[in-house]
Amino acid sequence: MSLLQDLSWRYATKKMNGTPVAQEKVDYIIEAARMAPTSSGLQPFKIIQVSNPDLKAKIQPIAFGQTQIVDSSHLLIFAAYDEYTKERVDAVFAQQEAERELPLGTSDDYKNTLFGMFAQQTKEQHFAHAARQAYIGFGMAIAAAAEQRVDATPMEGFTNAQLDELLGLDKLGLKSVTILALGYRDESNDWLVNLKKVRTKAEDFVINFN
Amino acid sequence: MSLLQDLSWRYATKKMNGTPVAQEKVDYIIEAARMAPTSSGLQPFKIIQVSNPDLKAKIQPIAFGQTQIVDSSHLLIFAAYDEYTKERVDAVFAQQEAERELPLGTSDDYKNTLFGMFAQQTKEQHFAHAARQAYIGFGMAIAAAAEQRVDATPMEGFTNAQLDELLGLDKLGLKSVTILALGYRDESNDWLVNLKKVRTKAEDFVINFN
Repeated sequence: MSLLQDLSWRYATKKMNGTPVAQEKVDYIIEAARMAPTSSGLQPFKIIQVSNPDLKAKIQPIAFGQTQIVDSSHLLIFAAYDEYTKERVDAVFAQQEAERELPLGTSDDYKNTLFGMFAQQTKEQHFAHAARQAYIGFGMAIAAAAEQRVDATPMEGFTNAQLDELLGLDKLGLKSVTILALGYRDESNDWLVNLKKVRTKAEDFVINFN
Repeated sequence: MSLLQDLSWRYATKKMNGTPVAQEKVDYIIEAARMAPTSSGLQPFKIIQVSNPDLKAKIQPIAFGQTQIVDSSHLLIFAAYDEYTKERVDAVFAQQEAERELPLGTSDDYKNTLFGMFAQQTKEQHFAHAARQAYIGFGMAIAAAAEQRVDATPMEGFTNAQLDELLGLDKLGLKSVTILALGYRDESNDWLVNLKKVRTKAEDFVINFN
């Protein structure tokens, strides 16, 4: 199967049937997000994996009561760095130098350019940039789920601050960005499952400078 | 090949060799971005496709002289809506109702909720939201390029306002967000090609609430 076939198969599942997704498949989906490229390789986001039913029940009202929260098997909550601290950026390059067996300090010039740029930005700008990187991983996870024939609902409809508080994300320097609910479609009760997938026409999507 | 194998194969190509990418492959990559899910199906971004060498030469100084700009075959510039106008949102739902053969106005309640939400936001917030959606498509395009064994460099390092002016994007209500340079690696001159791909360790990437 090709990526395009996988993307045709998938849809934003509105009703899930409660069947668990094998942890092996969930791990594969997370791995795709982990392998996603990010700006300067900073990977400024984490995935919070929730399979506990009690916790999902607490999250549901924060997500406007959407049923996928509790009918899903796993929630993958993408949470981005609230800021680029020196410690976080240093750790990325230290790991890179170690794994690539490069002399310590090889990346210092590049790193200092980054620090200079971040120093001119607000914490809000750091987060905005980090959140965008999380969306690349989010896209990869959506593609991976489709490839594994796991249904997935991308969700932005929740009160971020409440979710952050419930999960204690502020203490980790993280802010929730999106949720990917993983599970299996309930075909007989999902109003969207049989509706045509609609996209901007190809000729309206591309602007050519040839 | 699986998505994970494709993501292992790819890397942010630093030196390309000028070999053209078949248009069929470029179209496939764009199609993956077009099929990407977006918030409420709004698809608030376009892809500007640039293969013209003169135009690429004009873009290079705007992108800090990076050589992939001119050594690539195609540039895909992802540009997001500068705001969610009534006209744009109406058009999405009108197309959806038409293609799904639903009565005109079926989506009005949902649409009005969206309008209410957008009305409380600034134009900057609209753009920030639209840009995030573009990053999902960006992720899909990166995955599609890897699947097609086309090298691709995700690039944020350019002066957005200058690129918008050069391409006349402001007149189209668009703002550039990212560039994906497509081409083929120049193995003997790319310093990154043989370096190990480094990522946050899996155990540090995931936070479990089981």
